[in-house]
Amino acid sequence: MLLDQIQQTNDIKKIAPKDYPQLAGEIRQFLIEKISRTGGHLGSNLGAVELTMALHLALNLPEDKIVWDVGHQSYTHKLLTGRREGFENLRKYGGMSGFPKRKESDCDCFDTGHSSTSLSAGLGLVRARDIMKGTNTIVSVIGDGALTGGMAYEALNNAARMETNFIIILNDNNMSISENVGGVSKYLNNIRTSNAYLDVKDSIYNAIRKTKYGDGVVTGVRRAKNSLKQLVIPGMWFEDIGITYLGPVDGHDVKGLVRVINEAKRRKNCVLIHVLTQKGKGYGPAEKHPARFHGAEPFDVATGVPLKKKTKANYTDVFSTVMVKLGARHEDVAAITAAMADGTGLKRFRSVYPDRFFDVGIAEEHAVTFAAGLAVGGLHPVVAVYSSFLQRAYDQILHDVCLQNLPVIFAIDRAGLVGSDGETHQGIFDLSYLSSIPNMHIMAPKNKWELSDMMKFAYEFKGPVAIRYPRGEAFDGLAQMRAPIEMGKSEMLYEESGIAIFALGSMVETALGVREALKAQGRACTLVNARFAKPFDAEMIRRLSETHELIVTMEENVASGGLGEKVRALADEERLPVRILSIHIPDEYVEHGNVEILKKEIGIDGQSILEKISRELS
Amino acid sequence: MLLDQIQQTNDIKKIAPKDYPQLAGEIRQFLIEKISRTGGHLGSNLGAVELTMALHLALNLPEDKIVWDVGHQSYTHKLLTGRREGFENLRKYGGMSGFPKRKESDCDCFDTGHSSTSLSAGLGLVRARDIMKGTNTIVSVIGDGALTGGMAYEALNNAARMETNFIIILNDNNMSISENVGGVSKYLNNIRTSNAYLDVKDSIYNAIRKTKYGDGVVTGVRRAKNSLKQLVIPGMWFEDIGITYLGPVDGHDVKGLVRVINEAKRRKNCVLIHVLTQKGKGYGPAEKHPARFHGAEPFDVATGVPLKKKTKANYTDVFSTVMVKLGARHEDVAAITAAMADGTGLKRFRSVYPDRFFDVGIAEEHAVTFAAGLAVGGLHPVVAVYSSFLQRAYDQILHDVCLQNLPVIFAIDRAGLVGSDGETHQGIFDLSYLSSIPNMHIMAPKNKWELSDMMKFAYEFKGPVAIRYPRGEAFDGLAQMRAPIEMGKSEMLYEESGIAIFALGSMVETALGVREALKAQGRACTLVNARFAKPFDAEMIRRLSETHELIVTMEENVASGGLGEKVRALADEERLPVRILSIHIPDEYVEHGNVEILKKEIGIDGQSILEKISRELS
Repeated sequence: MLLDQIQQTNDIKKIAPKDYPQLAGEIRQFLIEKISRTGGHLGSNLGAVELTMALHLALNLPEDKIVWDVGHQSYTHKLLTGRREGFENLRKYGGMSGFPKRKESDCDCFDTGHSSTSLSAGLGLVRARDIMKGTNTIVSVIGDGALTGGMAYEALNNAARMETNFIIILNDNNMSISENVGGVSKYLNNIRTSNAYLDVKDSIYNAIRKTKYGDGVVTGVRRAKNSLKQLVIPGMWFEDIGITYLGPVDGHDVKGLVRVINEAKRRKNCVLIHVLTQKGKGYGPAEKHPARFHGAEPFDVATGVPLKKKTKANYTDVFSTVMVKLGARHEDVAAITAAMADGTGLKRFRSVYPDRFFDVGIAEEHAVTFAAGLAVGGLHPVVAVYSSFLQRAYDQILHDVCLQNLPVIFAIDRAGLVGSDGETHQGIFDLSYLSSIPNMHIMAPKNKWELSDMMKFAYEFKGPVAIRYPRGEAFDGLAQMRAPIEMGKSEMLYEESGIAIFALGSMVETALGVREALKAQGRACTLVNARFAKPFDAEMIRRLSETHELIVTMEENVASGGLGEKVRALADEERLPVRILSIHIPDEYVEHGNVEILKKEIGIDGQSILEKISRELS
Repeated sequence: MLLDQIQQTNDIKKIAPKDYPQLAGEIRQFLIEKISRTGGHLGSNLGAVELTMALHLALNLPEDKIVWDVGHQSYTHKLLTGRREGFENLRKYGGMSGFPKRKESDCDCFDTGHSSTSLSAGLGLVRARDIMKGTNTIVSVIGDGALTGGMAYEALNNAARMETNFIIILNDNNMSISENVGGVSKYLNNIRTSNAYLDVKDSIYNAIRKTKYGDGVVTGVRRAKNSLKQLVIPGMWFEDIGITYLGPVDGHDVKGLVRVINEAKRRKNCVLIHVLTQKGKGYGPAEKHPARFHGAEPFDVATGVPLKKKTKANYTDVFSTVMVKLGARHEDVAAITAAMADGTGLKRFRSVYPDRFFDVGIAEEHAVTFAAGLAVGGLHPVVAVYSSFLQRAYDQILHDVCLQNLPVIFAIDRAGLVGSDGETHQGIFDLSYLSSIPNMHIMAPKNKWELSDMMKFAYEFKGPVAIRYPRGEAFDGLAQMRAPIEMGKSEMLYEESGIAIFALGSMVETALGVREALKAQGRACTLVNARFAKPFDAEMIRRLSETHELIVTMEENVASGGLGEKVRALADEERLPVRILSIHIPDEYVEHGNVEILKKEIGIDGQSILEKISRELS
């Protein structure tokens, strides 16, 4: 095994060039085998094997820096920097992260997770290097999907015409998680299909040297514009704003890639290397179903079939179904996703109502203001998005949707702890940032039927509404509890006295267990489904305070700006004769790992809550 | 006066084409005269007079829609839609807004204020039109400055290769508030200076028709790339991603503009019209000093000199001075602005330390992650930004700066009420959104010396710190109160008993007046300068609760996630023997107007606070 020779950073440089293909094959086998057992991002990593090898060969780590956009394609990088053992516990609690982490290795120079940040971060490293008179090389690796995000363009605009070296690798696999959208993507695709491969055997410098060709005058050129467009001048779009374009190059040819990277290092400006790769390369099922193998659960290597059979519906499935129904019933319902038609469950809506479905690319800011435009134009749009990604659009929600009090529904998936993706993906801030916005209304369903009811309620309510629900299986208990939804009103589930639990969304299920345990201890316990985080049901809190000694609020969100803080503030302001115990996520980033373990660690699982209640009562 | 013939929407169509120049002149005179008395955005409006006239001539309002990016260039539009009288009370409380407002006119189709939203909003209107089988024309007018914002690019990417009409007017004056930055701007500037004016007298359709020229092969083209670049093929950058480019056209030729807009209306795709205008056109002082006349205070028409002399330093001035000092003392201090070198006071730092100064364009997202990159690279960056614009970078602060716990200082200007710019610009959410972020530290100075001290403290503290301070004159009272700053500790100003005021930042000045009034009533009053919003000084609250019957918290921020809510939560949690009164901004958007009036309206002025205290005590 060649791979056994690679124990630490730069060991790859000892491998003979003729053996690169074999090493690439071994890395692929390693990744497939490990990820099939732990789960993880497969397709993007299989596509970036040779590119990563080439970077490690051409660069001198850790002095040189690689910023991985999003970061889920950094597995080979981890493998080549002495973290082979880490794959045993990839994305497990206490184990290796699925993303670059500075605390893991000095070869991880910048933590990533969300899309389109790598160029800005890389540019920062470049400017710092120059100010501190450094001479190292900075490379940002960005996918064509991430290039649909606006901040990548902001960075390109700043990198252009810069008089210092900065290397951007555009890892173009013609996909984000699902297929890419938009003009830039089609432009890149035109280059892909133009057979205009950069001939890396020739001197690249020679190939792009200045020639005397074309010293014409402007008048002649205008007539040519349309014709020239059809020629696809490779990378002219980048060259036009002042970034040297090298490519396209074969992303699975290690030696060719090394040569281009070395050429790029010599430049005194920003160079973009356009690398063509295939997502899932080397593993049939992943090549065939790239979306499914983007982030995979453990699977059978031979067939690619997930090991664990799905038995219950996810909240995403429930949302998916209700969207199709809403679309059928109301012609003004439109759906928007930021490159997440699969993940958010909008795929079905897309197939039934393609004219009212919009995938805008990884562009949450645009998604939200676009929705505001649709709403002003007379439609009732639903923006389906993950909680942590919606952070990108805080200003647009505040400034474009809520200021105009427009009927836009935010269907916020992955709200609460998400598990193995970790710190960057936990959806634990949305109650806070959304609650600060005037005119916003925020709900969270206790079970799958309530998500459906809330979507219908949100449609009937002609203003901004956010509905947050967690990743994974939808709770299907409390089926009989289905009181009609009223704005700002909670739902009484079990009315007793003594202790009252006021639980929001996913925490209702946890609260049921806590209540059972309390009753086993001989304690009475009221359980209220909060339903609304904004406006929350202050009247219910007042009522509970009269007949209970303790109100326990429960939410999967940080305290600041959350529900518990507001209930406490109300109790203080109105001097309610009751104690409050607030269960929430502590003021810290929550790492990756199994959600049940994480909940225990941060004290929001049933047992921890029970202990807190006992302490409060004693 | 031709202007007298224009009483309502579409009246401009009655004006004879030969009289357009005269009308444009009258409009300019009107704007100069009115704005010289009320203050307001002058330069951008003088530049857009003919463009606005042409839009009103070529379109059929209000059926057709114009989305004005940022919106401060919409004065002529307001004038042409029956709002002439509104200029008497422009930007005054209860008067006409300086931005488009749907509630003002059915010709204002989308409220704007922040940059780069118009393409997304316009695209939403386009898609809604098509779904609802409408036939009207949608136009978004965006400046070249706003085009440096990422969400504009996200929208361009989505508008590209669309098979329905959407007109983008690129109002290119080669400026945002100050000079533009980046590759795209230089690219546009190359077009400006290439003398490649679109000859609007010829049939445009003919001019851009497909020709047989250039049916070469790809191989030949690569060699030509560098030469072609120098030719500046007008708009190829847009054409490359699939947007039809018409231009450049003279933005001060009404008839030419009308012809191009009419041509654009016939297209079945997205068309960008590149219009060249001059900011401040027709008024000498504004042509010469475009930045100064971007947003102007009342001025003398003859000289352009502001009527009101500035007597006291603004917080911005104080920040400006301390930045130069910090830069001198510490070589690792770098400064970043998003197109606001003037507004934020970084102009001086730029002139002294140009190598450590970065204007990234209207690109707050990039600014913040770029700062994170600088910090990882070993520098200590200061991001100077207005409170309401920092909303754009919530995710970047959370995901790139604070997750990695990096030493980045956020100098947040215009925090609190800003006055005449109104709803979109009030900085009343930053305490909320920043407090939700782990590792963040938030401070606010009571007076000008404290801003200086806090900047120095923030530098010594090697982690994320935000310092928020208001627009306008810096408070210069309490000069003798200058206790050393300690993390999370407040400052006792006057220690008595009975009532304790715990005031943050700008509210300390208000609190002084309240305290005086209380003392005049014979009531003792403790006054504490809170200093920190996160972590706030819980220990001080505990101490105050022992010796006071009422603690009054004061902040210029909404309640949710703010300081008052946290103090109340603490009091509730620890069952402190004290009543709390929280003074904050209500959960609503606050309109434009004089700050003193606004404070009274929303109940955070001294008198209102006194009344609330009396009520609380009785």
